[in-house]
Amino acid sequence: MRRTPAWTATGSAGLRTAPLERRDLRPDDVAVRVDYCGVCHTDLHALRSHASDSADPLVPGHEFTGVITDVGSAVRHFAVDDAVAVGNIVDACLACDMCEAGQENFCREFPTLTYGGTDRQDGRPTFGGFSREYVVREEFVYALPDSLDPAAAAPLLCAGITVWEPLRALDVGHNTRVAVVGLGGLGHLAVKLAVALGAETTVISRSPDKTDDARRLGARDVLVSTDADAMSAGRGRFDVIIDTVAVAHDLGPYLALLALDGTLSQVGFLGPVSVDSLDLLIGRKKLTSAGSGGRAHTAELLEFCAEHDVVAEIELLPSARVNESLERLARGDVRYRFVLDMADLDALAD
Amino acid sequence: MRRTPAWTATGSAGLRTAPLERRDLRPDDVAVRVDYCGVCHTDLHALRSHASDSADPLVPGHEFTGVITDVGSAVRHFAVDDAVAVGNIVDACLACDMCEAGQENFCREFPTLTYGGTDRQDGRPTFGGFSREYVVREEFVYALPDSLDPAAAAPLLCAGITVWEPLRALDVGHNTRVAVVGLGGLGHLAVKLAVALGAETTVISRSPDKTDDARRLGARDVLVSTDADAMSAGRGRFDVIIDTVAVAHDLGPYLALLALDGTLSQVGFLGPVSVDSLDLLIGRKKLTSAGSGGRAHTAELLEFCAEHDVVAEIELLPSARVNESLERLARGDVRYRFVLDMADLDALAD
Repeated sequence: MRRTPAWTATGSAGLRTAPLERRDLRPDDVAVRVDYCGVCHTDLHALRSHASDSADPLVPGHEFTGVITDVGSAVRHFAVDDAVAVGNIVDACLACDMCEAGQENFCREFPTLTYGGTDRQDGRPTFGGFSREYVVREEFVYALPDSLDPAAAAPLLCAGITVWEPLRALDVGHNTRVAVVGLGGLGHLAVKLAVALGAETTVISRSPDKTDDARRLGARDVLVSTDADAMSAGRGRFDVIIDTVAVAHDLGPYLALLALDGTLSQVGFLGPVSVDSLDLLIGRKKLTSAGSGGRAHTAELLEFCAEHDVVAEIELLPSARVNESLERLARGDVRYRFVLDMADLDALAD
Repeated sequence: MRRTPAWTATGSAGLRTAPLERRDLRPDDVAVRVDYCGVCHTDLHALRSHASDSADPLVPGHEFTGVITDVGSAVRHFAVDDAVAVGNIVDACLACDMCEAGQENFCREFPTLTYGGTDRQDGRPTFGGFSREYVVREEFVYALPDSLDPAAAAPLLCAGITVWEPLRALDVGHNTRVAVVGLGGLGHLAVKLAVALGAETTVISRSPDKTDDARRLGARDVLVSTDADAMSAGRGRFDVIIDTVAVAHDLGPYLALLALDGTLSQVGFLGPVSVDSLDLLIGRKKLTSAGSGGRAHTAELLEFCAEHDVVAEIELLPSARVNESLERLARGDVRYRFVLDMADLDALAD
């Protein structure tokens, strides 16, 4: 086994460094030195459920970039020193209809999650990117384009692909009128990507505080959702709404903003959604949801971002400040994504 | 004013004949002798709420066919003796974005309903097609193709257009795999229309009782929703599901039957819909709803039905049996749509 230091939860006391064992390389595995790992809402949820559920260790982190340090004997696409990225899934059956359609994230056998999953071969739990090394099947590793800053690119692998999927599936491009609800980790990338796709993009926010930021990110307009007159005037104005609000909320006011045959995609929220059928019926509107993406679309996203100079807006912190980043994320105090610099873990290596 | 006999509700004692006043013809009005009027679930709902709500008379009926008997001075498209049809809306602003898009059913000023609405000019309530004559603005009258049986065509004007809208909006055609949930008034027309559009069509029903009927209507297959193995085997099998179940029900098992990017359209159900976001997320599925349609699509539907020989399967009753038809409809005892023959009302005319 290989040993690497990792930020590990074993109870409710937050993350502490501990040595972690990684498997020896299989023929199709690569070892990645994790340089930068984003901090995602999923990490918060996982840590909260973990605290009450289990005494097994948990290592979060599922959007990271780094450099290949070792390759298995049968690795075909990567070599030592290649800059790479890994997202929230690290294996899938690659045989079912969803995998064959390039949607390994919907694998019928359920994809292997980057952490909190179970390895398909040895049955061991998977541990995430809040560590200095990750061992992963090369099929689930993406080449990181040279032009992308590796720290600011890390969030593309989860936040980015999560909003890219609906933008892409809904054919967003020139002449599409897109609204993004919520300007957080997902929302700010949705704005940047929609703008880069040529869409006329509006940010919908509860307060006008983020107007300057929204415009700097490329949004043409800001619609304040607490302004009843503005919401009324916005009726029927958008073809696509990407709703990034991470808690249950009334979709009616947003559905009213959709044009005929428009679609609202909820991202970053899991749970029961209640909607009045009349809000869908009048204007023949559609409700959908998205989360992460398949390999082909992830690779496509990275190429698109390199071409259009899109990365996340980040606060880069040494990984030793991981608990602080989680606390601030929990209260929404981040513009717009925390990324941990894992280099400080070297001092803790065995 | 013009007088005509009508089946009228004034309390909870069912419908009785009473004379009804229709307006004198405006320049753009036509008078239609109502020959055949379908009996719709909406009629049941309207009668139920009416019984508790109001002492004003109610005349149901919003899918009817007949013959023009009189035309206003400025009528351009119709002449006396023309065979025509009228659906569930009889006016709209014709100026808003929805009307301009041909979706007068979504008129921003709300369309004038065929009954239970309010006339846009005189402010009087509208009374429906369970009567011998209807006076209506010619823009909301459709030419009835000669080849269509006028009794069996009547349900096309509400049940038909309600399922035609999603089939059309979702681009159903050759190679589309369509499932229709529920084989009632809406469902049997959804099957016929999907088959005529060239789709591979399956009926989803709670019991196998309707298998023979489903096949006779052109369905290739029947999936019994209470058969867990069949439902499991059907996972990912359909591109489009038209769900005609008129009561609140769990959509999860049906969403599971959709393929990647598939859409479930609820028709004939109004109310709150609850769905688990994961059921939409996994496979990037869409939920939508439909109800009635605009003028252009209604005219298109009638032409399509004439070309493809599609009409409803009906039980034709003299209008004197209207209360019986409503009672039987309430308990689902109809294959597949009641249509009332209004000729017997002549004997009651003043």
